[in-house]
Amino acid sequence: MDFKKTEEQELLLESLRELLERECPESYVKECDAKHEYPEKFMRALAENGFGLLGVPEEYGGTEVDNVTLMMVAEEMGKSGAPVYLYGTALSVDDILTFGNEEQKKATMEYAKEGKMAFCLGFSEPQAGSDTNAIATTATRKNGKVYINGHKTFTSFAKTTPYMLCMTRDFDVSEPSKAFSMWWVPMNAPGVKIEVLDKIGWNMSATSEVYLDNVEIEEKDLVGKEGHGFIQLMKNFEIERTLMAAMALGQAECAFEDAVKYANQRIAFGQKIGKFQMIQQKIVDMNIKIENMRNYVYKTAWEKDNNISIQLSSAMCKRYCAQASFEVIDDALQILGGLGYTTDHRVSRLWRDNRVGRIGGGTDEIMVHIAGRGILKQYK
Amino acid sequence: MDFKKTEEQELLLESLRELLERECPESYVKECDAKHEYPEKFMRALAENGFGLLGVPEEYGGTEVDNVTLMMVAEEMGKSGAPVYLYGTALSVDDILTFGNEEQKKATMEYAKEGKMAFCLGFSEPQAGSDTNAIATTATRKNGKVYINGHKTFTSFAKTTPYMLCMTRDFDVSEPSKAFSMWWVPMNAPGVKIEVLDKIGWNMSATSEVYLDNVEIEEKDLVGKEGHGFIQLMKNFEIERTLMAAMALGQAECAFEDAVKYANQRIAFGQKIGKFQMIQQKIVDMNIKIENMRNYVYKTAWEKDNNISIQLSSAMCKRYCAQASFEVIDDALQILGGLGYTTDHRVSRLWRDNRVGRIGGGTDEIMVHIAGRGILKQYK
Amino acid sequence: MDFKKTEEQELLLESLRELLERECPESYVKECDAKHEYPEKFMRALAENGFGLLGVPEEYGGTEVDNVTLMMVAEEMGKSGAPVYLYGTALSVDDILTFGNEEQKKATMEYAKEGKMAFCLGFSEPQAGSDTNAIATTATRKNGKVYINGHKTFTSFAKTTPYMLCMTRDFDVSEPSKAFSMWWVPMNAPGVKIEVLDKIGWNMSATSEVYLDNVEIEEKDLVGKEGHGFIQLMKNFEIERTLMAAMALGQAECAFEDAVKYANQRIAFGQKIGKFQMIQQKIVDMNIKIENMRNYVYKTAWEKDNNISIQLSSAMCKRYCAQASFEVIDDALQILGGLGYTTDHRVSRLWRDNRVGRIGGGTDEIMVHIAGRGILKQYK
Amino acid sequence: MDFKKTEEQELLLESLRELLERECPESYVKECDAKHEYPEKFMRALAENGFGLLGVPEEYGGTEVDNVTLMMVAEEMGKSGAPVYLYGTALSVDDILTFGNEEQKKATMEYAKEGKMAFCLGFSEPQAGSDTNAIATTATRKNGKVYINGHKTFTSFAKTTPYMLCMTRDFDVSEPSKAFSMWWVPMNAPGVKIEVLDKIGWNMSATSEVYLDNVEIEEKDLVGKEGHGFIQLMKNFEIERTLMAAMALGQAECAFEDAVKYANQRIAFGQKIGKFQMIQQKIVDMNIKIENMRNYVYKTAWEKDNNISIQLSSAMCKRYCAQASFEVIDDALQILGGLGYTTDHRVSRLWRDNRVGRIGGGTDEIMVHIAGRGILKQYK
Repeated sequence: MDFKKTEEQELLLESLRELLERECPESYVKECDAKHEYPEKFMRALAENGFGLLGVPEEYGGTEVDNVTLMMVAEEMGKSGAPVYLYGTALSVDDILTFGNEEQKKATMEYAKEGKMAFCLGFSEPQAGSDTNAIATTATRKNGKVYINGHKTFTSFAKTTPYMLCMTRDFDVSEPSKAFSMWWVPMNAPGVKIEVLDKIGWNMSATSEVYLDNVEIEEKDLVGKEGHGFIQLMKNFEIERTLMAAMALGQAECAFEDAVKYANQRIAFGQKIGKFQMIQQKIVDMNIKIENMRNYVYKTAWEKDNNISIQLSSAMCKRYCAQASFEVIDDALQILGGLGYTTDHRVSRLWRDNRVGRIGGGTDEIMVHIAGRGILKQYK
Repeated sequence: MDFKKTEEQELLLESLRELLERECPESYVKECDAKHEYPEKFMRALAENGFGLLGVPEEYGGTEVDNVTLMMVAEEMGKSGAPVYLYGTALSVDDILTFGNEEQKKATMEYAKEGKMAFCLGFSEPQAGSDTNAIATTATRKNGKVYINGHKTFTSFAKTTPYMLCMTRDFDVSEPSKAFSMWWVPMNAPGVKIEVLDKIGWNMSATSEVYLDNVEIEEKDLVGKEGHGFIQLMKNFEIERTLMAAMALGQAECAFEDAVKYANQRIAFGQKIGKFQMIQQKIVDMNIKIENMRNYVYKTAWEKDNNISIQLSSAMCKRYCAQASFEVIDDALQILGGLGYTTDHRVSRLWRDNRVGRIGGGTDEIMVHIAGRGILKQYK
Repeated sequence: MDFKKTEEQELLLESLRELLERECPESYVKECDAKHEYPEKFMRALAENGFGLLGVPEEYGGTEVDNVTLMMVAEEMGKSGAPVYLYGTALSVDDILTFGNEEQKKATMEYAKEGKMAFCLGFSEPQAGSDTNAIATTATRKNGKVYINGHKTFTSFAKTTPYMLCMTRDFDVSEPSKAFSMWWVPMNAPGVKIEVLDKIGWNMSATSEVYLDNVEIEEKDLVGKEGHGFIQLMKNFEIERTLMAAMALGQAECAFEDAVKYANQRIAFGQKIGKFQMIQQKIVDMNIKIENMRNYVYKTAWEKDNNISIQLSSAMCKRYCAQASFEVIDDALQILGGLGYTTDHRVSRLWRDNRVGRIGGGTDEIMVHIAGRGILKQYK
Repeated sequence: MDFKKTEEQELLLESLRELLERECPESYVKECDAKHEYPEKFMRALAENGFGLLGVPEEYGGTEVDNVTLMMVAEEMGKSGAPVYLYGTALSVDDILTFGNEEQKKATMEYAKEGKMAFCLGFSEPQAGSDTNAIATTATRKNGKVYINGHKTFTSFAKTTPYMLCMTRDFDVSEPSKAFSMWWVPMNAPGVKIEVLDKIGWNMSATSEVYLDNVEIEEKDLVGKEGHGFIQLMKNFEIERTLMAAMALGQAECAFEDAVKYANQRIAFGQKIGKFQMIQQKIVDMNIKIENMRNYVYKTAWEKDNNISIQLSSAMCKRYCAQASFEVIDDALQILGGLGYTTDHRVSRLWRDNRVGRIGGGTDEIMVHIAGRGILKQYK
């Protein structure tokens, strides 16, 4: 057993911290959040300093790091109060690098180098959230062209990306594992209609309904192999869950530190509120949860790095971190009192942003569904 | 024991339901919330139909009802999705009717009849939230005038009310119970500065910082007796806590019904999600909490109506309802999934609005402080 | 609404309290528990003072009371530290009075008048706990006799009762609602083998495995109508659940009072531990849970008394009370510290006894199963 | 980061598993528990196979291992269903080896080699549980002898050990850190009276009240330096807490495996109960807690091995594991249903034994007291 960060990891995080301080101060984050604006300047700085393509192969201009390090980076970003939910694009980039054609790869990298997304992910549909099998968008061939019809929902970045990585279903194929394909759909094509959804949080990421009405694309716009859509999607699925857990952990650490510092200063009934047992109990349990989350995230990433299956552990890690991080942030808000309920304090933003972590990327309940059956099988 | 509503109560609630449906449809509430606007039209309708002055003596144009009925009204309003947090003005009106002079009473009633507040409550200060003893605003006499200096915070309605009921402290008086006084401060007087706070929720109620810089008022602007500020404040304190609990209960019922209906319709994995045990378990526990809240609220109000002290029970009732109602609403949001995270669904609004219930009117922790010592005393 | 006890109820409880103090002091309970002995003397006193047949029609020597009063009696008994889990026999007596023949009724009443059980309930089987449909015991006719074969488990009182009310299944009948019958089986008949189970608690009630190997009985030993076993069983089912909830409530109250008194006396770090916020928070939340349980129990019983269906409310009431009461008792044990872990203090006994409440009479999970579907139906 | 066990650790645990299977089968544990008997045969086998003195310096016949390995051994023992609470004697042995004189060391090792304790720990007193400062036992010198007077409570093994390591207080010394001393008191000396306490669990370890009435000992019976009692006691305190956490973890793993296996076999409503979502959810959350506990225990031990202070982490680790392990075992009992409530299944024993972990070695609340202040200091 060894719970120590390597020197390289320490240095990387140190340089990240400096970057975050310089390029992503609270005033900037607050402003982007209030304006519902993508923090372009910060995302470009991330990209220019090598953090944007962390985990992407060097041949594409990225920096290969192991998964443990990737998680530490996400954690650190969350801890600083930055909009960490925008991070994690590297993984989707990776999908295209593995399965895309040259044109798709080129477009992807061009954008990525500037801290932008070239494509949004067109997976979720009104009737197909957790139940991806229910996807109903189709790709129909006619006169040498391909026509996409369907309705995607909760599509992050749809408003600003030039393409959508769009999952379609072939209803003539009965076996689910062979019925889905991915397409590279230009968002400025006729027939694409985008409606931004207003949400509780994640203000810097416009989430949209996307209506695809007979959108014409070409055969060459297929991504990867026809019918292999799900297998391709699955490639980075488990590590994405772990990454979401790492982000949640970082957000919790941010709120925790704010709350503890506040408890050290705020006076009530003639003493610092940190002296009250009810506050101390909260702080101790918050700290315990953070420790648990951190251990879980690192271990799951380490397993992946060591070719141990994380099918179950990534689901459990995500379930725990999504729930525990919200509890920590909610306790932080409670310690801050009225102040925490105002946008003057960033904990209110973390509280709004973090809650979706129990829904997106597979709900808490889906995590039970995945892990539960697997655990039972292990003891048969 | 009798858990039945009287016929009068049933009729009153029936007419309230009709009013709410007519005057406060979801589209209207959503719009006011999005625009951060006071729902003037609805509040006037409430007043004109007699609900605005429920609990106020008939001689002032009100309708006297017992506390149990008052709670039922608040519950019903919350249940409909209306901005129930705006209700409860009757109680502050009652304070003025008891302690105010003719001029103050007249102004109060004039506004109340139109569904408006004549005054905001100037109690909370940056260093005096739960710890009301720490109030530092002063009233100084000079040349026959009175000058108010201080800084109030989390002041609801400050932006729109013509007066503030302002608590001041006399630092020459050592005994706390005799050191506080209430004043009737015109908000358009020179020296009053108002800064609206941006909050997670309660959008229809502008909450503000109020800076009082040498604000000149008259001797006649004293409310009640000098030095009796706290005693006057306490009069309706316990029933206000119970009212907050009733509001929280109503909000929880609203979210619960939405969630159950959704579970009856939404299909995933080929069946209605209400068929899944994980959803059923949530729904059962939500229902249990609602039942507990309702019983607690009605019983506490009944105790008050029967001259049984509610000092402890109102604190416990508020603690339970503030926590349980948020849990119910949070579960509802979880059942609704991504939809619940968007402003398209009112549960997202309830979720944002309700959270402050664990802070305002005395935090969860203050409720322990009040009730804990009292219970221990009972068993000495 | 009226939350007040009637004068009759107050008087009844007053006389019960006196009886409990006199006939069931802690030393006696402790001794019976240590010896795993039925508290015969106390049970006889209960019977002789009219509490044994509370709820049984007057024509059979009982005293008719409404269900609310019955719950108060169970609560009071539990609150005193008495083995309340032995109470509730009146309900099974009621079953026989409704469906039994003269001989069965006579035997039942003879025993009941002395505070004893004439029969044990032979329902649960190794493969049929919550899933009563899985009962596999059979009654086979041969040469004018009836032969019972099967294996009953968790049978309370089997060791001491002269008869078993034994449920059998007719495998030739496909419709479950017509396949079950009840029989009156003498426990001293050849072929009956009893093996006492050792349990965590409920020491005063011997719980046994009962093996029925070709036990010969007569046609006249049928109880009620053939094939109507389940319908007969269901008669008192819902009120039994409410009664279990009332018992759990009483036990929680007993532990709560002990804990609060202890917190008022025990000194640590130079002050009474009741002064510590962590203890106060526990005490407040215990008190809240007790209040919730009490309201739930009374209301459910009141509904039954007023011909309102308690199918759902009794399941929810039982689920809540079984869980909340254990939490309260567990907190009491924690407040008592090491002392609570020893049998010197009755809280350790309550802790052991109470836990089965989340299993017996339908598990926590079965309560969800019952109530969940019902609630969903209400909102269709 | 590295979460892998070394080959040596794997081999050690492998040999331990074999030993446990051979020397400590469930039937044996059950019998010792039922008879309230020290499992002498098993403890001797542990000692003879080198596990009894794991962590004790080689010069005394022990085997030095790092703390991580020690935790793994405790975990494995607990996981097997063995009475792991008897383990951990090595640490107290270590105290004597560090501070004791030759005679004391010799006696200690003689017993330890046979798997027995030479001495019990006389620290807790009726008024001094968590608050060790309140110890009131005295050592008075008279005519060249030393006389011990006091009352110790919750003294494990007092009945069978030849000596007590007895803490006394010198009331003439005001500074607490210099007022306590340790003495080596023969338990067969006149004036020693032992009364065994009956407890909820830990049946194989007799816990006693010990009355010391003018017990005469010699100057040479001082252990370590006079006035240094507390400093000596503190030496192994933090690692002992971590060890308790490891034991709790092991017990939870044992119950978890039993429950999952049962869920894979038990049929209800026509299918394995493991198919029900309510059971799956429990199992997933149990697994998550076990993973959290394991990570916390290993990391804390690793910190100690790497000279990182574990003052705070050992307190938080103990708090989390004591609570989470009981929750896991309680869930296991619930899954087992009625069977889990009987002594036929070992989960009922684990449930009774484990609960004291939230009290002994510092209560849950004391852990908050220790860690809370420390965390706040870190953020000043």
